[in-house]
Amino acid sequence: MKLAELGEDRVVAALTKALPVDERVLVAAGDDCAVVRTAGEILLLKTDCVMENVHFTRDASPRAVGWKALCRAISDTAAMGGRPGDALITVALPPSLPLAWAQGLYAGLRRAATVYHVNLVGGETARSPSLIFVSVALTGSVPGGGYVTRAGGKPGDQLYVTGSLGGSIRGHHLTFRPRVEEALWLNEHLAVHAMMDLSDGLAKDLPRLARASQTAYRLDVDRLPVNRGCTVEQALQDGEDYELLFAVAREDAVALEAGWPKAFPRLTCVGELSAGRVRGARRGGFDHFDPRIQSTP
Amino acid sequence: MKLAELGEDRVVAALTKALPVDERVLVAAGDDCAVVRTAGEILLLKTDCVMENVHFTRDASPRAVGWKALCRAISDTAAMGGRPGDALITVALPPSLPLAWAQGLYAGLRRAATVYHVNLVGGETARSPSLIFVSVALTGSVPGGGYVTRAGGKPGDQLYVTGSLGGSIRGHHLTFRPRVEEALWLNEHLAVHAMMDLSDGLAKDLPRLARASQTAYRLDVDRLPVNRGCTVEQALQDGEDYELLFAVAREDAVALEAGWPKAFPRLTCVGELSAGRVRGARRGGFDHFDPRIQSTP
Repeated sequence: MKLAELGEDRVVAALTKALPVDERVLVAAGDDCAVVRTAGEILLLKTDCVMENVHFTRDASPRAVGWKALCRAISDTAAMGGRPGDALITVALPPSLPLAWAQGLYAGLRRAATVYHVNLVGGETARSPSLIFVSVALTGSVPGGGYVTRAGGKPGDQLYVTGSLGGSIRGHHLTFRPRVEEALWLNEHLAVHAMMDLSDGLAKDLPRLARASQTAYRLDVDRLPVNRGCTVEQALQDGEDYELLFAVAREDAVALEAGWPKAFPRLTCVGELSAGRVRGARRGGFDHFDPRIQSTP
Repeated sequence: MKLAELGEDRVVAALTKALPVDERVLVAAGDDCAVVRTAGEILLLKTDCVMENVHFTRDASPRAVGWKALCRAISDTAAMGGRPGDALITVALPPSLPLAWAQGLYAGLRRAATVYHVNLVGGETARSPSLIFVSVALTGSVPGGGYVTRAGGKPGDQLYVTGSLGGSIRGHHLTFRPRVEEALWLNEHLAVHAMMDLSDGLAKDLPRLARASQTAYRLDVDRLPVNRGCTVEQALQDGEDYELLFAVAREDAVALEAGWPKAFPRLTCVGELSAGRVRGARRGGFDHFDPRIQSTP
């Protein structure tokens, strides 16, 4: 059985089932970040990677690739209601690569680190036989320790997304702004029941949130905040929006919509969680091992 | 200017110069691990990677590759005088890969995690166009907070290595045991001035320790603990020994040699740090971007 025959979610499930963890681990594999208890605090841990010809092509701006590589992980700390802390960068680079390209990559990493107050504390530089590979490991913290998982949603919760969806391939996937301030505001002002960032498309990610929360969901397709020039199907199925999807109690929705700062991107109620269970994912969204999907450049 | 023309140390120096860090960062890029201060403790942070056709070939046992991938990072937490904590695994896998290979990889990761009391708290699974790539991010802690860097060596310090050196390519590089217990013992019983793990060969790594400590060094080549069937040159220049190299004050050497537990691997004094500075590295050892070196399978 090859990975392509299984699809991403089943590959991940097969590999990460019952990993060894002890009682310090509050959230293990399967959420946007892991959460561990250390001597003095709650620590978020995240790793992520971008690979040439999967997440970017060589003709992309190396600064943009660096920005993307770090911001993807930053977005995951936001998805837990937290902020990023310290980052380690692993790069595998072909020996034929011009130093200027590698320096551009690091310029993008530095820029993202500076904008989001991340410490770049080190990493590893290795040789790659041909393709460029960038992996980011990132710690994070949650003010007050009240992190938000995907699993706390309840039937009746209203589902919101920040910003607009679809068409990320046109450039947004290299320039997006992780919703850190928005996540911290939400975590401070509301009891957010469940949250995640949208990386594989709402059609694939929303069922994941509902499944983790042991609920079903209703999606108001007509209300989706569709990016200009995109179809509803693109808003559902394109990956790499890096917007927040979250669930709050119905009675909190008015306060949320009234209090949502004007400086933030738009906020849209796109549906609600409902009683029941998700049976199989809605088709679509990005699947890393689906042979029908060639690339998200 | 291509990376191959610069060599690994100059590439790393060019990329990681003056990375953005704040006052929480106690040790930044350049040592075996980064060290950061969190709310309640000292946290070690390490990332590392192994790549197909650079660090292993497809015919290697996937369990051994998984063991190696995690144990390399564990070895770096030992090199700081600490123990490993929580690991995140990033894998990029070609869709044509048999699931059994990926499961074997994870079996090796699980085995190393269990033996060294590491929590596998998650990670990322992505598609690779062709080659297998495994990146590990690992936290660690130091009992009492007294971490050991490469930078604290003083002229006159005696230099020791654990175990034997050379010939790792014959198999040791896939099966080695990180020297965690040894490092914890050292950190508890002695004032270790400087320590690192030997990953690129003593000929390359010792000058790094001396340079970080702003000393020169004298190496007693005749006293090197050479693995059976290896030449002195191999003991100097082969990479991936994953033994500890450390410096202690001359007056501590007797207590060290007398107290070194019998259950531990052999301990050898291989030279001493001396007044002066390292001028350029001794030739040899593994260099990731050196075009003369084709591979360390």
